[in-house]
Amino acid sequence: MKRVKVSNNVIRRLPRYLRKLDELQAAGINRVSSFELGQQLGLTPSQIRQDFSCFGEFGQQGYGYNVMALREQIASILGMNRGFKAILVGVGNIGHALMDNFSFADCGVDLVAAFDIKDSLVGSKFKGVPIYHEDEMQDFLSRNDISLAVLAVPQEVAVSVTNILAENGIEAIWNFTNMELTEPDSPILVENVHFSDSLLALSYFISERADEGHARTN
Amino acid sequence: MKRVKVSNNVIRRLPRYLRKLDELQAAGINRVSSFELGQQLGLTPSQIRQDFSCFGEFGQQGYGYNVMALREQIASILGMNRGFKAILVGVGNIGHALMDNFSFADCGVDLVAAFDIKDSLVGSKFKGVPIYHEDEMQDFLSRNDISLAVLAVPQEVAVSVTNILAENGIEAIWNFTNMELTEPDSPILVENVHFSDSLLALSYFISERADEGHARTN
Repeated sequence: MKRVKVSNNVIRRLPRYLRKLDELQAAGINRVSSFELGQQLGLTPSQIRQDFSCFGEFGQQGYGYNVMALREQIASILGMNRGFKAILVGVGNIGHALMDNFSFADCGVDLVAAFDIKDSLVGSKFKGVPIYHEDEMQDFLSRNDISLAVLAVPQEVAVSVTNILAENGIEAIWNFTNMELTEPDSPILVENVHFSDSLLALSYFISERADEGHARTN
Repeated sequence: MKRVKVSNNVIRRLPRYLRKLDELQAAGINRVSSFELGQQLGLTPSQIRQDFSCFGEFGQQGYGYNVMALREQIASILGMNRGFKAILVGVGNIGHALMDNFSFADCGVDLVAAFDIKDSLVGSKFKGVPIYHEDEMQDFLSRNDISLAVLAVPQEVAVSVTNILAENGIEAIWNFTNMELTEPDSPILVENVHFSDSLLALSYFISERADEGHARTN
């Protein structure tokens, strides 16, 4: 695929576009204008047109976007059709919850194995995914083409596990440990999951509403 | 506080600014320009100046921002100093993980109680937070001023629990159930936690790197 450099902000909006387009598709809507998309997502139509223009032309002036075609384009841009394989390391609360409730397949990612050190887990399967001992991880990575590791280990081992993953061909880490894993110049891609971002946004909205209510009663 | 209407995108960037300013403060940096902030966050200096101007003037032309003062302003805008109280409903994997690892206090939120239906949990305390039976929730809410509920119940009861929360004065739900909880015109604020957004961004970055590597070897 021909690529142009795309700003981080555009990349961050793509999953939101995808979700919205999935919603529209589920509601039986086949065509959407940049104006309508903008209204539903709190973005200006010109921003939406500009975002999509980074990847080529999807829409037609005055005619809008074909929901399904745009959805497929964005999924492809996000690499969802590339069959990336993932392992999960650390089947504690978060790791277990992800295996139980999160659909990796919906993101185009194939979760092929999990690793832990607990005897009660090692050797079992959960939702079809085998759980191996962390000692077997290096060997497993050498025999399989794994792009991505979901890191859900305790903080005290997060950096050492990251080093093992990096030395064994893992390109990217989805980091649930709330720890800074790598130096700024590390070649490994790390995506930190920050729960606090959404809680703080919620806190903002509650505050805003409280202030508006207060203004009204004065 | 005097408020102007702020776009959703600006609100979404505030927690990122906050994290970055915390990092700078931890590194002993007291002053930062919009240019430096922009470089570190992948935003243009003018976008940063524009974002901050929504809330009044923080910086001085050619002199940059005072890191600590800006951090305090953003925290205040986010409502982190308002002492919002929260309950958590559903002490399963995700709920347990949040109680165990997530610092509500760092977001200025006071987690005062959790609710579940499991006999093995009810009546116990976890990290200082009491766990009550869900049957006691209405009574608890009537006796306490709770703004926020963390929803981590199984999907099949998500909507019914939401209704109970809404009827008992909860203003906002931090939703970990991956379910659409409310109708569009509902007065309750809902913030859905979408794990997939960050996984898809990571998928994008792996794809981009693969294509760049491919382009280089051709």
